[in-house]
Amino acid sequence: MAGRTKPVLHGYFRSSCTWRVRIAFALKGIEYEQVPVNLIKDGGLQLTDEYKKVNPMQQVPAVTIDGMTLSQSLAIIQYIEETRPDPALLPVNPQKRAQVRMICDLIVSGIQPLQNLYVLQKIGEDKVSWAQHFITRGFVALESLLKQTAGKYCVGDEISMADICLVPQVYNAERFKVDVAQFPTIKRVNETLLEIEAFKVSHPSCQPDTPADLRA
Amino acid sequence: MAGRTKPVLHGYFRSSCTWRVRIAFALKGIEYEQVPVNLIKDGGLQLTDEYKKVNPMQQVPAVTIDGMTLSQSLAIIQYIEETRPDPALLPVNPQKRAQVRMICDLIVSGIQPLQNLYVLQKIGEDKVSWAQHFITRGFVALESLLKQTAGKYCVGDEISMADICLVPQVYNAERFKVDVAQFPTIKRVNETLLEIEAFKVSHPSCQPDTPADLRA
Repeated sequence: MAGRTKPVLHGYFRSSCTWRVRIAFALKGIEYEQVPVNLIKDGGLQLTDEYKKVNPMQQVPAVTIDGMTLSQSLAIIQYIEETRPDPALLPVNPQKRAQVRMICDLIVSGIQPLQNLYVLQKIGEDKVSWAQHFITRGFVALESLLKQTAGKYCVGDEISMADICLVPQVYNAERFKVDVAQFPTIKRVNETLLEIEAFKVSHPSCQPDTPADLRA
Repeated sequence: MAGRTKPVLHGYFRSSCTWRVRIAFALKGIEYEQVPVNLIKDGGLQLTDEYKKVNPMQQVPAVTIDGMTLSQSLAIIQYIEETRPDPALLPVNPQKRAQVRMICDLIVSGIQPLQNLYVLQKIGEDKVSWAQHFITRGFVALESLLKQTAGKYCVGDEISMADICLVPQVYNAERFKVDVAQFPTIKRVNETLLEIEAFKVSHPSCQPDTPADLRA
């Protein structure tokens, strides 16, 4: 890794998709720089022409790494996995890899996009019940899958990309007052993961751009 | 492959996520069976208790393959790629793989979930303008990315998972009357892909469950 400049993460402390990338960096022990993009200030700094050059989708996260800029959290994490493979974030067994990816995609495509800031701003006054509906629908399915796949973590006893997606989504669920106790496997795995250093140091409560009143 | 039973695809002719999987099977020359799940009939047959056992998320597609059942189209396609690698649907170069995945995720997480049937049913009477808004927003970003990555296809001159995601999303855009001519790279790559046999045989206009009045 000598000679490589540090990756730069464009993100926001409370963005669940940004947190996914922070967890991946932390699990792999990769040092990186953070460039905060405040999604609230002045209507959202991700909407500036300057940030549009970083990510034309005008969302966080984006990562500048190895001379290119990538967006989409899972694509970023898969790239990190393929270029910095240790420790692995995917199992070796193809069937278990498929289970990991199925859980990731259920969260990343099936839940998060429907409760992100931009969508909720468009929904307006019904936004809390809208977010609760889609998170609950997704968690019903996720609980059912995890009952089949989980060991200590989402798939068996090794930490994987599925765990990286789970924890920030549970954090969002709690923000929207979804009762996670309805989903005992989700709750148990999440609590186990939150004890791990990589999940702690990447938590929204302790990032460079976390406001003072929200710091842990 | 001898001795393997054929994969079974639970899907719907007009579901863009199902079409992705049909393209992957067709590109790889994998024979499969289709079990149609009518998303319209009786309020949606994906909502039955019977189908919930196939996919707890109660969406299509789901694929029964190698003794397990997988949901989430990209997870399915990645599993097929890892177990039936020829022809490859991902480039060898890690940076190009990342570009493919970034384009896939932009569509699969950033566009499609916001314009799928279930969400539009919840939106109600504004559903067409809602769908147009999110498809257009995504295509503005996608066009910008493709200008940097595309050759003959989405990333260079080899067909990849990005192309598998592109064509069904353009089909949806046209259904919602988004003017795709605004996005010249998307339009050109889509037209090139539609000439390829695997994209033709998998098209919604010629599936076992395509109604007579919509058949090509």
